[in-house]
Amino acid sequence: MKCIFCDIASGKEDAEILYDNVGIISFLDIRPVNYGHALVVPKQHFENFTSLPESELKKLIHTTQFLSEKIVSSLNADGFNIIVNNGAAAGQTIFHFHFHIIPRFKNDFNFKPKFKAYENNNMKEFAEKIREAVKQ
Amino acid sequence: MKCIFCDIASGKEDAEILYDNVGIISFLDIRPVNYGHALVVPKQHFENFTSLPESELKKLIHTTQFLSEKIVSSLNADGFNIIVNNGAAAGQTIFHFHFHIIPRFKNDFNFKPKFKAYENNNMKEFAEKIREAVKQ
Repeated sequence: MKCIFCDIASGKEDAEILYDNVGIISFLDIRPVNYGHALVVPKQHFENFTSLPESELKKLIHTTQFLSEKIVSSLNADGFNIIVNNGAAAGQTIFHFHFHIIPRFKNDFNFKPKFKAYENNNMKEFAEKIREAVKQ
Repeated sequence: MKCIFCDIASGKEDAEILYDNVGIISFLDIRPVNYGHALVVPKQHFENFTSLPESELKKLIHTTQFLSEKIVSSLNADGFNIIVNNGAAAGQTIFHFHFHIIPRFKNDFNFKPKFKAYENNNMKEFAEKIREAVKQ
């Protein structure tokens, strides 16, 4: 099946490549939340965060840390977000795993989630469900 | 200096603990984007993503992967986001590093970033700046 990130990794498709090493490639997102918004991508095809083998995940997060510092220093950013969207319900649109690195600047912050409040005793109920799964 | 996450890690402050092992603790965010919104936190105090040592970062991301699957299965979620806010400009409010895990459900997706477009040749200009930093 055609995968745009596989094609970028193999050089078949162009991208603004930022980094290319040890099975990992990084390039600019063409639909940036901020200028300099980068993606960190394993060259091997894995659908999502959940399907990454441990060794691949650890290499990727370490490279993401390295690149986030380079993005901050080169663009004089004031901070950054790392984001993973896992599944269409979470906003994933390309089903080849990628970390987003989004540089942030004072007063430009445009990620304003709507927070919920837990009601009555339902915080404990949600925690219980997850704790049960963790034990399994 | 008082740190709420250090106090949770040491048991001085209450939280809905989901997981506690190998120097890592996870608990529910009291200001959830969705019910079940969890934080994954090193017990040792590190200010942010940038300041995490490699070994700590790798342990944390692996535990985050493990817990994201448990959250999805226990809450019948359709997906999830992993988020790091690094620096006040990126929305960081507690300066003790934490990964956010936010369960997502079909039709509840409320993270709608405003995308920008690159103009003229400035995509290449941003890429060049970052590439120069990567080489250093």
